[in-house]
Amino acid sequence: MDSEFDTLIINAKIGTASECFPGDIAIKNGKIYAIAPDLKALKAKNVIDAEGAYVTPGGVDGHTHIDQESTPGGSDYPYRGADGFETGSRSSVAGGTTTFIAFAMQHKHRPDHSLSDVIGHYHDCATGNSYADYAFHLIITDPTPERLAEFPTLIPKFGISSVKLYMTYDRLKLSDYEVLHTISTARKNGITPMIHAENIDIISFFSEELEKLDLLDPYSHARSRPALAEHEATNRAITLSEVVNVPILLVHVSSPGSVQRIRKGQGKGLPIYAETCPQYLLLTDAGLQKPNYEGANCVCSPPLRPSKEDLDGLWNGLRNGTFTMVSSDHCPFRTDDPLGKPVSIKDSGKPGGDWRLIPNGIPGIETRVPLMFTFGVCTGRLSIERFVQLTSTNTAKLYGMYPKKGSIIPGADADLVIWYPESKYKSTKLTNDMLHHNCDYTAFEGMEMLNWPRYTLLRGQTVWDADKGEVTGKKGYGQYISRESSWYAKNQVLFDDITQDAWKNEWRPSY
Amino acid sequence: MDSEFDTLIINAKIGTASECFPGDIAIKNGKIYAIAPDLKALKAKNVIDAEGAYVTPGGVDGHTHIDQESTPGGSDYPYRGADGFETGSRSSVAGGTTTFIAFAMQHKHRPDHSLSDVIGHYHDCATGNSYADYAFHLIITDPTPERLAEFPTLIPKFGISSVKLYMTYDRLKLSDYEVLHTISTARKNGITPMIHAENIDIISFFSEELEKLDLLDPYSHARSRPALAEHEATNRAITLSEVVNVPILLVHVSSPGSVQRIRKGQGKGLPIYAETCPQYLLLTDAGLQKPNYEGANCVCSPPLRPSKEDLDGLWNGLRNGTFTMVSSDHCPFRTDDPLGKPVSIKDSGKPGGDWRLIPNGIPGIETRVPLMFTFGVCTGRLSIERFVQLTSTNTAKLYGMYPKKGSIIPGADADLVIWYPESKYKSTKLTNDMLHHNCDYTAFEGMEMLNWPRYTLLRGQTVWDADKGEVTGKKGYGQYISRESSWYAKNQVLFDDITQDAWKNEWRPSY
Amino acid sequence: MDSEFDTLIINAKIGTASECFPGDIAIKNGKIYAIAPDLKALKAKNVIDAEGAYVTPGGVDGHTHIDQESTPGGSDYPYRGADGFETGSRSSVAGGTTTFIAFAMQHKHRPDHSLSDVIGHYHDCATGNSYADYAFHLIITDPTPERLAEFPTLIPKFGISSVKLYMTYDRLKLSDYEVLHTISTARKNGITPMIHAENIDIISFFSEELEKLDLLDPYSHARSRPALAEHEATNRAITLSEVVNVPILLVHVSSPGSVQRIRKGQGKGLPIYAETCPQYLLLTDAGLQKPNYEGANCVCSPPLRPSKEDLDGLWNGLRNGTFTMVSSDHCPFRTDDPLGKPVSIKDSGKPGGDWRLIPNGIPGIETRVPLMFTFGVCTGRLSIERFVQLTSTNTAKLYGMYPKKGSIIPGADADLVIWYPESKYKSTKLTNDMLHHNCDYTAFEGMEMLNWPRYTLLRGQTVWDADKGEVTGKKGYGQYISRESSWYAKNQVLFDDITQDAWKNEWRPSY
Amino acid sequence: MDSEFDTLIINAKIGTASECFPGDIAIKNGKIYAIAPDLKALKAKNVIDAEGAYVTPGGVDGHTHIDQESTPGGSDYPYRGADGFETGSRSSVAGGTTTFIAFAMQHKHRPDHSLSDVIGHYHDCATGNSYADYAFHLIITDPTPERLAEFPTLIPKFGISSVKLYMTYDRLKLSDYEVLHTISTARKNGITPMIHAENIDIISFFSEELEKLDLLDPYSHARSRPALAEHEATNRAITLSEVVNVPILLVHVSSPGSVQRIRKGQGKGLPIYAETCPQYLLLTDAGLQKPNYEGANCVCSPPLRPSKEDLDGLWNGLRNGTFTMVSSDHCPFRTDDPLGKPVSIKDSGKPGGDWRLIPNGIPGIETRVPLMFTFGVCTGRLSIERFVQLTSTNTAKLYGMYPKKGSIIPGADADLVIWYPESKYKSTKLTNDMLHHNCDYTAFEGMEMLNWPRYTLLRGQTVWDADKGEVTGKKGYGQYISRESSWYAKNQVLFDDITQDAWKNEWRPSY
Repeated sequence: MDSEFDTLIINAKIGTASECFPGDIAIKNGKIYAIAPDLKALKAKNVIDAEGAYVTPGGVDGHTHIDQESTPGGSDYPYRGADGFETGSRSSVAGGTTTFIAFAMQHKHRPDHSLSDVIGHYHDCATGNSYADYAFHLIITDPTPERLAEFPTLIPKFGISSVKLYMTYDRLKLSDYEVLHTISTARKNGITPMIHAENIDIISFFSEELEKLDLLDPYSHARSRPALAEHEATNRAITLSEVVNVPILLVHVSSPGSVQRIRKGQGKGLPIYAETCPQYLLLTDAGLQKPNYEGANCVCSPPLRPSKEDLDGLWNGLRNGTFTMVSSDHCPFRTDDPLGKPVSIKDSGKPGGDWRLIPNGIPGIETRVPLMFTFGVCTGRLSIERFVQLTSTNTAKLYGMYPKKGSIIPGADADLVIWYPESKYKSTKLTNDMLHHNCDYTAFEGMEMLNWPRYTLLRGQTVWDADKGEVTGKKGYGQYISRESSWYAKNQVLFDDITQDAWKNEWRPSY
Repeated sequence: MDSEFDTLIINAKIGTASECFPGDIAIKNGKIYAIAPDLKALKAKNVIDAEGAYVTPGGVDGHTHIDQESTPGGSDYPYRGADGFETGSRSSVAGGTTTFIAFAMQHKHRPDHSLSDVIGHYHDCATGNSYADYAFHLIITDPTPERLAEFPTLIPKFGISSVKLYMTYDRLKLSDYEVLHTISTARKNGITPMIHAENIDIISFFSEELEKLDLLDPYSHARSRPALAEHEATNRAITLSEVVNVPILLVHVSSPGSVQRIRKGQGKGLPIYAETCPQYLLLTDAGLQKPNYEGANCVCSPPLRPSKEDLDGLWNGLRNGTFTMVSSDHCPFRTDDPLGKPVSIKDSGKPGGDWRLIPNGIPGIETRVPLMFTFGVCTGRLSIERFVQLTSTNTAKLYGMYPKKGSIIPGADADLVIWYPESKYKSTKLTNDMLHHNCDYTAFEGMEMLNWPRYTLLRGQTVWDADKGEVTGKKGYGQYISRESSWYAKNQVLFDDITQDAWKNEWRPSY
Repeated sequence: MDSEFDTLIINAKIGTASECFPGDIAIKNGKIYAIAPDLKALKAKNVIDAEGAYVTPGGVDGHTHIDQESTPGGSDYPYRGADGFETGSRSSVAGGTTTFIAFAMQHKHRPDHSLSDVIGHYHDCATGNSYADYAFHLIITDPTPERLAEFPTLIPKFGISSVKLYMTYDRLKLSDYEVLHTISTARKNGITPMIHAENIDIISFFSEELEKLDLLDPYSHARSRPALAEHEATNRAITLSEVVNVPILLVHVSSPGSVQRIRKGQGKGLPIYAETCPQYLLLTDAGLQKPNYEGANCVCSPPLRPSKEDLDGLWNGLRNGTFTMVSSDHCPFRTDDPLGKPVSIKDSGKPGGDWRLIPNGIPGIETRVPLMFTFGVCTGRLSIERFVQLTSTNTAKLYGMYPKKGSIIPGADADLVIWYPESKYKSTKLTNDMLHHNCDYTAFEGMEMLNWPRYTLLRGQTVWDADKGEVTGKKGYGQYISRESSWYAKNQVLFDDITQDAWKNEWRPSY
Repeated sequence: MDSEFDTLIINAKIGTASECFPGDIAIKNGKIYAIAPDLKALKAKNVIDAEGAYVTPGGVDGHTHIDQESTPGGSDYPYRGADGFETGSRSSVAGGTTTFIAFAMQHKHRPDHSLSDVIGHYHDCATGNSYADYAFHLIITDPTPERLAEFPTLIPKFGISSVKLYMTYDRLKLSDYEVLHTISTARKNGITPMIHAENIDIISFFSEELEKLDLLDPYSHARSRPALAEHEATNRAITLSEVVNVPILLVHVSSPGSVQRIRKGQGKGLPIYAETCPQYLLLTDAGLQKPNYEGANCVCSPPLRPSKEDLDGLWNGLRNGTFTMVSSDHCPFRTDDPLGKPVSIKDSGKPGGDWRLIPNGIPGIETRVPLMFTFGVCTGRLSIERFVQLTSTNTAKLYGMYPKKGSIIPGADADLVIWYPESKYKSTKLTNDMLHHNCDYTAFEGMEMLNWPRYTLLRGQTVWDADKGEVTGKKGYGQYISRESSWYAKNQVLFDDITQDAWKNEWRPSY
C-alpha cells in the first residue's frame, strides 16, 4: 500500500446496500482499492474531500430506451426518440447513473435478422459514443425456434443475460404460449426474463369504445389502460413463471393492486422480482389532463394512476421489500419534433389530436437517482441503504454485473456518487434546462430537489462535476459491460423446496 | 277448489330452496295448484302417498352435451357422443332431472351458419325425442359482427338467454378481446355468459413437453392441465367480467384455488356465479391411473384433481354459498364404440394409445341428483334446502326458467322428485346397469347410494317409477323451454354501487 | 277445505326467502292453511285484498333491549331505557315486526341470582304487556360453574336457545377463557352464542388518552372505539369459535374490515354467522358531530363509521351472503329524561357533558323492516327474497323459531306484512311522530321512505293498519315463543369434514 | 498505515449483509481497520490465513435465557437453568456467536424491585464471567406507573433499548391494556418492544381439557398450544402495534399461519419485525412423541409443529424477507438435574410425569449459527448475505448495536467467524459432546453438519479455535454492550405516510 493511488476520497459517509459508515476510499486503476477510517496518509494524484457527505455506488439504470429504432409500442410509424447514446449517456452521468442498460429490439417484421444482427446494430450505435458504461437487454418479439436457438450464445458470446417480453402492444406482444417457450429457454441458459404486463385485449377493446365516444384527448390514453389490465397480466405472468419455475422481473409496475399480487407470489416463495419508476411514485394522472394537448407529455405505458393512494401503495412496496429496483424507463420524445410528441396532433387529422398516435414514454435517466434521493432519503421514507439497493446494487445483482457494479467494496469498479453535504445544498426547483438529455421537457418540472450528485465518478474518473456545472467525462469513455447470469438466480433454490401445484404429480418438463 | 284434481301428493316432506315442511300438494293441468297441510279431502284422479319422504323440485341440469356434433374439444375428429335426446332425456328423468339444458354449438369452420341455423339443427334433433323438458345454451366459437348481431333475437325469437364461451381448446377458444365483445353484447341483450376457464397456452405448452417425454397415458391428460391453468383463467375471466361489469358463470370449477378466486370476486361485490359437478366433488385423479388404458374413462376437462383436500375445498364452496349450482357436464362416450373412448388407442398408432385423442367427458345426467342427495343430504353436508338450491332452483333462476321450473309454489310446473322414505330404501351400490343412458360405464361405479328418486313427475305426469323399475314417461312428452333473462340479473345492482377501478375516471363504454 | 276460513288474503305478490309469486293465502286458527293461485272461492270471515302488493313474512327482530335493567354497558348508573314491553312491542308491530327477541341479562353483581331468576324477572315484565310475539336471549356476564350448570335446562325448561356474550364493557366483558367455557357448554346444550366483539383494552386505553386531551364531546365516543378494535375482537372471536368448533353469531357488525374477516372464516368452512343493523348500513358518524351535544343521540356501540365506503362495504356483505341477518339493536333513551341521554350533560359536571356518561344505543325496532324495504328492495340493492331472508327467515332459523316464524308455508304462523302496492304509496319523509315507541327521536329522521307496512298480521290478526293509522292489535295478544336449537346447527356438519388446525393431532376436548 | 497491525486475515471470502467478495482484513485495537484485495504487505503480529473460506460477522444472538432466576414460564417452582454467563458464553463463542442478549426479568411478585435493581442483579451475574460480549433485554411483567417511569432512564443510564412482553404464561402475561401502555411508553423512549404472542386463555382452557382426558405426556404440551393460539395472538399484537403506531418484534414465530399475518401487516406498511429459531426451521413435533418421557427434552413454547409444510413455510419467510432475524431462544435444562427436565416426572406424583411441570426450553446458543450455515448456506436455501443478515446484522441493527456489531466495515468491532474452506471440512454428525454449554443434550443431536466456525474472533482476539478444539478466549473478556435505539426506528417513517384506520379522525394519543 505504499505505491501512489489515483484518487482518494476522504471524509465520506459511505452508504452501501447494507451499511453506512464514515471512512475514506482509495482508488487505483479505476477500482476501489481500500476502505478504511482514515487513509489520508496515503499518496494520491487526486484527493476529493466529501466533506462528510454521502458517497454511494454509481446508479445503475436497468430500463432505458436509447437510440431505439421505434417506440416501445413497436409501431413502424416514424417516431424519433430524442436520445441516442451520446445525449442519453451524458444525461445519465449528470444524474449520478454510471451504468445503464438499453434495449436491443428484435423486429417481428424482419424475421431474417438474427439476434446477433440486432445486437450488432446496437453496438454500432453505441460504440465510441457513450459517457457512461452500458449494457443491452434483448427485446424478443418473435421467438421462433431459430431465434431461441441463439439463446445459448447470448451470455458467452454477447454478455447479455436478460430478455424483455411484452404482453401488450400489437406489434410486440407474445402469446402466453410464446412466453412459456421463451422463459423456459431463457432459464436453461441462465437468462432472466423481464415482462411488461398489461392485457392487450382489454386495452384494444377499451380503445375502440373510446373511439366510439370520440374520446381522443391524451387523458383517454389512461382511460384505455385501466389498472385492472395491469393487475390481470401481472397475475398471469406470475402464473406462467410458476408453472415452469422461472424467475422473472415485472417491469415498471404502476399500481398497488399489482404490488399486492407480486407480494403474494413472493409470499409463496416464487422467484418474482419487480421494478417501478419515479413517475409512478411521484406523479398522478393529473398531468394528463392539462389543456391544449399538453397532457401528451405525460403519456407513458402503463399510464400514471389517479390518486395519492396509488403513490402511497407503491412507496409501501419499496419499503417492505416487494420491489427489487427503481429504474427510469427513459423514453424521450421532443415536443418540437414533428416526429415526436406532436405527431399525434399533426398527423391525426383531428383538431385536438388523437392519443393513439402519441409516442409513449417520458425522459428520466438523469432525474431518477436525484428524485429517489430527495423523495426517499431526504424525506426519511427510505434509509440510505435501501436507496442504494433500489437504485444501484439490486439492479447490478439481478442483471449479472455485480459486484463489479453497484457496490463499494475493494475490487469493485470505482463508480461513485458524491452528494452535497446537507449544509451545502440549497433546495432547488427542478427545471428542464438543468438537464443534459436531448428532450425539451421533463415531467418532473418544478419539483423541489433537496440534493443532487456533486460528483459522479466512473471507474475512478470524475465524469460529472456539479460545482463546475459540467459533464467532465469524455464521449466514448463509457464501456460496454458484458454481463453474467443473475446473482439472484445463483442464490435461489428453485425446484427443490418450493411447493408447486404444477409439479404435484412429480412430472416436469424436459428442462 | 271443488273441481277434481289430476294428482294429489300426500304425506310429503316438502323441501324447497328455503323451506322444509310437511304437507300435501294438489296438481292440476300439469301445475302445482295448492299446498296445504292436509288436502286429503280433495278429489283427485291419482293419489301418491309420499309416506313422509322428501318431495323436492325436479332437478334442473344446466350443463349437458346431448347429440352434439363433436366433442367439447371441438375436434372434427369423428367422435361420437353416446347420447342423443332420446337416451339422454330417458336417463335424465330416471335420475330425477326433469329439465336439462343442452348445448347448441356454433362451428368456427362453418362461418356461413347463422346462430339461427345452429339452433334449428338442434331443434331438429330434439323435437319429438325427449322424455324431459329441455332448453338450449348457445356455444359461441366465432363471434363475428354478423353473429353478434343475432344476439338481440336470441331471447325474443328463440328463448335462449345464455351463451357459453371457451378460453381453451384450440378450435373453440376465444381471445380475451372476443370474450369482451361477446359478453358486453350479451349483457346488452339480457344474456348470461358461461365461461370454461382454462389457459390453453399453458396446456399446449405442457402437452408438447409431455410428448417429448413420451408420456401418453390417460393420466398425462391431467398432467397437461395443472390446477394453475384453471386458476389463471378463472382470475382472467373475473377481470374481464369486472372491466365491463357483466355477470358471468364459471362452469365446472374443479379446484379449490379457483373457488378462492371466485369467492374473492364475490366478496368485492362482483356478479360472479359458479358451477361445479359431482365428479369434482367425489372423485380424485386416482381413476385416471388405472392400468390398461382404463383411465381413459375418467378423462374430462378440467381433469379430476389429486387429493381429498381438493374435494373438501369444493364441498366448502358448496356450503358457504360460493357455488351457485351443481350440474352434470354429461358428455358420454362408449368404451365399445371405436369412435368413442377407444379412438385414442385404435387410431393413435401407439400400443398404449395417446391421451390427446381421448374424447373428453364422462356421463352423469342420471347420477347427479342422486349423488348430491346421498353425499350431500344423507351425510349431513348439505341441508335439504341447499340441495334444492344447487340442483334445481338456482339453475332455473340463473337461466331464466324460474319460477316455472325449480320451485314448489302454486302456479309452477309440477316437476317433482318423490324420494324414498329413509326406512324404505336399502343402501345400494351404484352400477352402470342401473342407469338409462346409452353409455356403457359410469365413473361413479360402486358408490354406495343411500336414496334414489322413487318417482319423478314432469308437469304432473309420473315419468319415472323406481318401484316398477321403469321409465313411465313417453318419448316426445318433453317440451322445449323458452327462457327469459336471468332472475339474478333482474335482482342485481350492477353499475351504481359497485366500486370499480375500471370506471374510476367516470368513463364507461357505450353500452 | 269446505269449512269457513278466518282470513283470506287475495291478489298477493308473495315473497319468501327463495320465491316470489302471485297467489292467495288462506288462514285458519292463526296459521297459514293453504297457498294457491286463486282461493277466492273459499268462504272466509275476513278478506284482505293485497291489490297486487308484496306480502312477506312478519319481521323477526333478533336484537332488542326492552325493559332491560341497565344499559348494554352494564353500568349500574340509573339509566332508564325508554321502552318496556308495551311500547316496544307496539312500535314493533307498527313497523312490520311480529316477533322480537329481547335480552334477559344476568348481573355480575348479583351472583346469587340464578339464570332461572333472571328469566323469571323478564317474564314478569313481559307477560300481558306485549302486542307482538317475543322471546328471550340470555346475556351471560358471570359464567360461574353454577350458572353454566343451568344451561341444560335452558331449552327444555325455558325455551331459550341463545346466549349473548360481551368482549367489551367493563362490567359485562368475559375473558377469552370464559368465552371458551361458555360457548363450549352452550354447544353441548344446543345453544347458539352471540358475541359483541370489540376489544375493551384498546377502548379503555384510548378513552384515557382522550380524557388527557380533554376530548369529551359525543364524537369522541367514536374516537375511542376505532374500527381496528372491532376487527381485532372479531378475529379473536372467530378463532375461539374455531378452536372449540362452536357456531357463533357476531352481532351488530359495523365495519367492512370485520365483514372481510368473517367472510374469510366462512370461506374456510367455519360456522360463523353475522348480523348488522340499519344504522350501520345507512348512517355515518356525521350525526355524532352535531353541535350542542346533539350528537349524543347517535351514540351507539360499535359507533357509526366515517365514510360511504364503510356503508358500501356492509351492503356488499348483505348481497354476497356474508351477513345472516339484519336486526335493530333497539336500545332507546329519551332526550327529555334526565336518566336518558342528558345524563351525560347533567351529571358530568362539565359544561359540554362527557361522552363516557352517554347511555349507548338508539331506537329502531319500528324502522328496521321499512328501512330495509326502502333502501334494499325499492332501490334494487336486495331482491325481495334476500330481504325476507335478512329481516325474517334467517333470524327465525338461527334462533330456533322456524318454520313457525319467518315463513309463508302451510302450517306456519300467519305472521305477515302486507305492503302498499307501489302505485298507492306516496314517498314520505320519516319523522319521529310517525313512530310508536316511547323514544322522543329517531336517528333516521328525514329519510325518504318508499313504502311502509300497510297491514301487519300476527297469527292471523291484523295488529297494525296503516290506512287507519293505528295499532289495531291488543296489548297482551303477543305470546312468548319457546325456542329450539338453531336450524343451522341441525344442518351443519361440524367436526367431521372441516379442516382444523386445532384438531390435527386427533385430540379433542371432552365435549 | 505503516504502523504494525494486530491481526491480518488474508485470503478471505468476506460475506456481509449485502456483499460477498475476496479480500484481506486488517485489525487494530480490536477493530477492523481496513479491507482491501491484498493487504499481505502489511506488518501484523498475527496473520490468519482463511484459505479462501467465508469470513462473516460474528453471530449476534438476540434471544437467550442465561442465569435467569426462573423459567420463561415465570413459575417460582425451583427450576434451575443449566447455563449461567460462564458456560452460556463459552458455548456461544464456540458456535460463532460473539454477542448475545440475555433477559433481565422483572418479577411481578417483587413489586418493590425497581428495574434498576433488576438490571443490577444481572450485571452482578455477568460481570467478569463472560467469554462473549453481551447485553440485556428487560422482561416487563408488571408495568406499574412506577416502573414505566423508569423507561426514560433505560437507554441513557443502562444502555438497554428493548423490552420483552408476554401475552402468555400466567405469571408473566400482560393484558392488552398493559401492552398498549408499555409499548407506547417504550416508543416515547426509543425502546423496541418484543412480544411473545400466544393466547393464554386458549392454552389454559385446553390444558384443563387435557387433564380431564388424563393426557399428561410431553406431547400434550403441544396439544395444549395449537397453532391457532399463536395466530390469534400474533394478529392481536399487530393490531395493538397498529393502533398506537409502535414498531414491535414478534419473537420465536413457529407457524406459517403467523408468518402470513406478519407478512400481511408488513404489506400494509406496518413496522412489524419477526424472529424465528432453528428449532422451528428444522424440527417437527415428532421429537415430543418419544417414549419414556424423553419427549420432555423437546418441550419449548411455542411448541414444535407437526409437519414438513410447517418447516417449509418458515423457510419461505426467511427467504422472502418476512423474518428479520434468527435467534436461538437458548433456554437449557439438564436431564440429570432433579430441578431440570425431570422435575415433571419426579414431582408430579404420576408415573408418567406431567407435562405441565416440564420446564419449557431447549439449548441452542452454540448450534444456531452453524445450523443456519449448514441448512441455509450449504444447501443453497439462503445466500451468504441473507445468512449474515439473519444471524448477525439485522439483530445488531434492530437492537441498537450497529455498526459496532454485525458488520464488516472499517471501524466496526473485529468480531468475525472464519469458516472452514469447503474442502477442509468433513461432514460431521452433531453430538452433544461437541458442545460447550452445561446442558446434557441437544435437540439437534445427529444432524449432519457441513461446516463449523473454525475460528471465532471477538474484538480481534481468537476466542474459539476449532483446529485446536478449544475455547481460546478468556472468561471475563466479554464486555457489556451499551445499546442505542433501533437502527430501523431511525430509518422508518411512522406517522406521516402510513394509512391507519385508527387515526382517520385525525386524532392521536398524547405521545
